[in-house]
Amino acid sequence: MKKVERTAVLGDGAWGTATALVLARKGIEVALWGAFPDYVAEVDRTRENTRFLPGVPIPPSIRYTDDIDDAVAGADLVVQAVPTQHLRRVMERLSRPRPRVVFVSLSKGIEQKTFQRPEEILRAVLGPRTPVAVLSGPSHAEEVARGLPTSVVVAARNPSVAQVVQTALSDEAFRVYTSTDVTGVSLGGALKNVVAIAAGISDGLGFGDNTKAALITRGSVEVARLGTRLGGRAYTFAGLSGIGDLIVTCASRHGRNRAFGEAVGQGGKPEDILASSPKVVEGVWTSRSVAGLSSRLGVEMPISQEVYRVLFKKRDVRKAVVSLMTRSLKPE
Amino acid sequence: MKKVERTAVLGDGAWGTATALVLARKGIEVALWGAFPDYVAEVDRTRENTRFLPGVPIPPSIRYTDDIDDAVAGADLVVQAVPTQHLRRVMERLSRPRPRVVFVSLSKGIEQKTFQRPEEILRAVLGPRTPVAVLSGPSHAEEVARGLPTSVVVAARNPSVAQVVQTALSDEAFRVYTSTDVTGVSLGGALKNVVAIAAGISDGLGFGDNTKAALITRGSVEVARLGTRLGGRAYTFAGLSGIGDLIVTCASRHGRNRAFGEAVGQGGKPEDILASSPKVVEGVWTSRSVAGLSSRLGVEMPISQEVYRVLFKKRDVRKAVVSLMTRSLKPE
Repeated sequence: MKKVERTAVLGDGAWGTATALVLARKGIEVALWGAFPDYVAEVDRTRENTRFLPGVPIPPSIRYTDDIDDAVAGADLVVQAVPTQHLRRVMERLSRPRPRVVFVSLSKGIEQKTFQRPEEILRAVLGPRTPVAVLSGPSHAEEVARGLPTSVVVAARNPSVAQVVQTALSDEAFRVYTSTDVTGVSLGGALKNVVAIAAGISDGLGFGDNTKAALITRGSVEVARLGTRLGGRAYTFAGLSGIGDLIVTCASRHGRNRAFGEAVGQGGKPEDILASSPKVVEGVWTSRSVAGLSSRLGVEMPISQEVYRVLFKKRDVRKAVVSLMTRSLKPE
Repeated sequence: MKKVERTAVLGDGAWGTATALVLARKGIEVALWGAFPDYVAEVDRTRENTRFLPGVPIPPSIRYTDDIDDAVAGADLVVQAVPTQHLRRVMERLSRPRPRVVFVSLSKGIEQKTFQRPEEILRAVLGPRTPVAVLSGPSHAEEVARGLPTSVVVAARNPSVAQVVQTALSDEAFRVYTSTDVTGVSLGGALKNVVAIAAGISDGLGFGDNTKAALITRGSVEVARLGTRLGGRAYTFAGLSGIGDLIVTCASRHGRNRAFGEAVGQGGKPEDILASSPKVVEGVWTSRSVAGLSSRLGVEMPISQEVYRVLFKKRDVRKAVVSLMTRSLKPE
């Protein structure tokens, strides 16, 4: 495949913007599309994404647009960083792009009604022959934007598609490793957000690092359990896009799913907390998808089920965590 | 086996003291032995272990002694929390205890000259028929002492030995799960300290959570690689005493191995940092054992080897981390 020279990034949130910055630093042309014309115009003028990535200067080489077809026109590579629950609607706005244009998905979630993952939505809307890759791993946008060393995984069925993305995005600080396990990489990114909400709830209740580490460990086991049942490889869940991303999402102060959980643990109402910030907390919607999927498939997911009950079924938060921590003393 | 009623805890550091508190809260008799008579007398008088566990009141029911035979006399269960490099010498001071007394090892390390683990040292000194268990998991002593929910694993070859320890130590907040993988549980606890020093170095250099998560993920892979080579089970390294303990040791502000690494990353000389605190940083000595073991066995341990070189071979810290983070872009 030919070298990537022109790219489009769809979605002007933190992660879309950080990825645009990585591409721009390498001298690759970037058109960045956002859904809200007023905000696109504002960021284009001020060269700062105050809502999602404050304090990071955006170079003039990144071209802002609110016209999705304009963004994608002529691109060799399209990076999509649209929240999972909006992804289908956004992709349906797109005129059919040129064949052979590679789409890289950065979204981390599972669509609620269909249980489809972002790469499945892309193929469903754009046609099954569209080359699709998913990129995931321990990568807070704020740190990627600041150029701190970061390692991620890009997965595609066809290894040469993954290599195109690897070559386009890698530099000294941003290290992209390849994989062919699209399902495993995608699910690791989606499912970890639910565990991160549980970890945040534990923080909000005033429990310590011991409690959180136990939750993360058990969370990693249930993520791998559902993930392998859906076709991902066990090895992937032990890697950067599995346990690596789970760790950073649960432990870091930056994590919005963890922070949301912390507010819930402190007694906040989920709907009020969500209404107070423009940021999308993917784990909330993923918890509903996971609760549905795990029940349908008969896969035991105690942590994710408790998170779902707390968020959607008025389950008491303290009871939820205490019940997870005081299960009967079986062998590990 | 009979119910545990009298216990001895050998070692008056943070972890020995926290375990004594767990036992005392359950109404079990505890004799706590420390190696330094003056400090033992001081803590006995003030009922606070100011050096290792400040701010935690120690109830009068915990009996302090500087006579190791006095501590162990009549005990059904002996908990040893002595630094690994001192363990053999301390155990050799002990008159042969009654047969059938269970020894639980809390030490996390590998003896430098012999490459023996704490449970091997115990059997070597006390005789091969001594019932020995090892206890490990994500459990900062400060949080255990404060009664925060904590889950750990106790492993013994004989499941009934593990159950004796489980019953003696478990309560609502401190959850003890059993295992028969003594080698895996012991090695998870030892090897994670070296990775935690690497994580701390990354913090000290000003790198972010992304970098650290990548180091932890790769660290968990190399821990499992050496651990399974030495006879531990892969499953154990994915559990509480493996990845769980690794996470808390690398991520938490409490971790002394991480904090030591951070000081090294900030430019401190290892010998000066060690001299500035009474706390034993097990990972320093374990890094030397691991470097020796991995070379002898031909097991690739890039992170542990870099830590060893930084601490003992004057390797530049920044070069060490950058070389780990910018390896060639192979498939994950």
